[in-house]
Amino acid sequence: MSTHALSHYQQRVNRTLEQAFDRLPHCAPRLLEAMRYGTLLGGKRARPFLVYATGTMLGAEESTLDPIAAAVECIHAYSLIHDDLPAMDDDHLRRGQPTVHIAFDEATAILAGDALQGLAYELLAECDLPPELESNRIAMLRVLAKASGYQGMCGGQAIDLAQTGQPIDLATLTQLHALKTGALIRASVELGSLAVAGVDETQRAHLRQFAEKIGLAFQVHDDILDITGDTEQLGKPQGSDLAAEKSTFPALLGLNGARDVAQDLYQDALTALAQLPYNSDQLEGFARYIIERNQ
Amino acid sequence: MSTHALSHYQQRVNRTLEQAFDRLPHCAPRLLEAMRYGTLLGGKRARPFLVYATGTMLGAEESTLDPIAAAVECIHAYSLIHDDLPAMDDDHLRRGQPTVHIAFDEATAILAGDALQGLAYELLAECDLPPELESNRIAMLRVLAKASGYQGMCGGQAIDLAQTGQPIDLATLTQLHALKTGALIRASVELGSLAVAGVDETQRAHLRQFAEKIGLAFQVHDDILDITGDTEQLGKPQGSDLAAEKSTFPALLGLNGARDVAQDLYQDALTALAQLPYNSDQLEGFARYIIERNQ
Repeated sequence: MSTHALSHYQQRVNRTLEQAFDRLPHCAPRLLEAMRYGTLLGGKRARPFLVYATGTMLGAEESTLDPIAAAVECIHAYSLIHDDLPAMDDDHLRRGQPTVHIAFDEATAILAGDALQGLAYELLAECDLPPELESNRIAMLRVLAKASGYQGMCGGQAIDLAQTGQPIDLATLTQLHALKTGALIRASVELGSLAVAGVDETQRAHLRQFAEKIGLAFQVHDDILDITGDTEQLGKPQGSDLAAEKSTFPALLGLNGARDVAQDLYQDALTALAQLPYNSDQLEGFARYIIERNQ
Repeated sequence: MSTHALSHYQQRVNRTLEQAFDRLPHCAPRLLEAMRYGTLLGGKRARPFLVYATGTMLGAEESTLDPIAAAVECIHAYSLIHDDLPAMDDDHLRRGQPTVHIAFDEATAILAGDALQGLAYELLAECDLPPELESNRIAMLRVLAKASGYQGMCGGQAIDLAQTGQPIDLATLTQLHALKTGALIRASVELGSLAVAGVDETQRAHLRQFAEKIGLAFQVHDDILDITGDTEQLGKPQGSDLAAEKSTFPALLGLNGARDVAQDLYQDALTALAQLPYNSDQLEGFARYIIERNQ
């Protein structure tokens, strides 16, 4: 993935998020501070990248994509804040910084996550869209709500908590991650494609295929990094999955087996992109980045 | 308020919620159970009542209002589940039953609240609406998101947590409740009015006025009940505000002073309704119920 494109999109989504926070009144300053902190302190902005790269590939304006990318990142940030809570994964470090409930307190972290979820829908419901996209706005809200909720991220996290310390099979592990991280990655690509009027269903299906493959590859590679990465680069303790007795792809398949799976998923993702009559360099670059990154 | 209308609407919204839960796949059964438990176990359904009473008064079909009322109740249920958490109000009893984190566990309670928030937006984004209301759907989503988030419920809860144990003045207490409970009550009335095409702005302003007054009256009366009610009827320990060192209207104004405020708000609410060219019996009944209920 071109570092230039990545940092360009990072800057755009960060600015959009900052503007969204700046627009909020100061009625609850500590809560606002926690929302800012949990959202703006680092992060790869992988999901916003997918919104931008998919949307611009299909012909959308970057300015149309800004609030959509920001909405997805609000959902992602809320999920990280809640997942880090003592009752959940009990993580003290995230992106190399104290997690929100450490930097603030637990109640504020719960509320910051809750309010960020609301902000995501507000951004999508309120943003300016070109008139021809007005009818896609509801579809965007639907996609985001489904990906975040019981049938997506929340359901996946629930399965993850239930399976901790228990042996599970590859099918369950795959389903868990298809919901926990995959759903929002698929939603990001889908939202990018909804930011252009009239994208045809076949192309959308190829994009969905691409998103499904990279979503899973993302998690497989995350599991590999938990074993091979170092704490400083990861921004969280290396080996924390093992310590938390979580099932992982390397645990089920061995390190080399997991690497093979990641490679296969990468190839499948490229095959899906090759069906599209667009310049998909940025999405290809992203797929490569997914399986090569060291953090 | 006619008990008949109340129980009729309760049944409608409960059935709609049950159907929404029944439609969800069984991928995370414990989470689904907690969502059901936190939503369906009792509750006055005051907010759904306002959606139905406002909407039908203006001419909406009850069936149009079902998913809208259910969406509001999902938001309300999520807020109760999160507010009851140990890091927040640490309540073990709600509606006379163990709270969700007691009946299940803390992680499941956090996730159930999160997923209910998502479900609320999904219900609004996916429900069937008559074609002439399609353009109001986005307005409904916007109203609900704003009322739930930083500028509404979450912001109010943050102010509430910040003020606990500290003396605050009447203006701050009023603002706190305008956000914490008032915002969603106002949203319920607003959503009911958005379920009818072409309600004029003046009438909407009167309805907003009504909602603002009963929203605050609701909280003032709640504070009074915390002193005068008994634990069994309240479904939570009597005196829990005092025990939690929360500022209340009776603490600032005395019990009689608080009762006068509730009466004034009730009269203002009736005055607002009197401006409307509709049969507002159900909303009047609700206003009376607000200041006369003993639970």
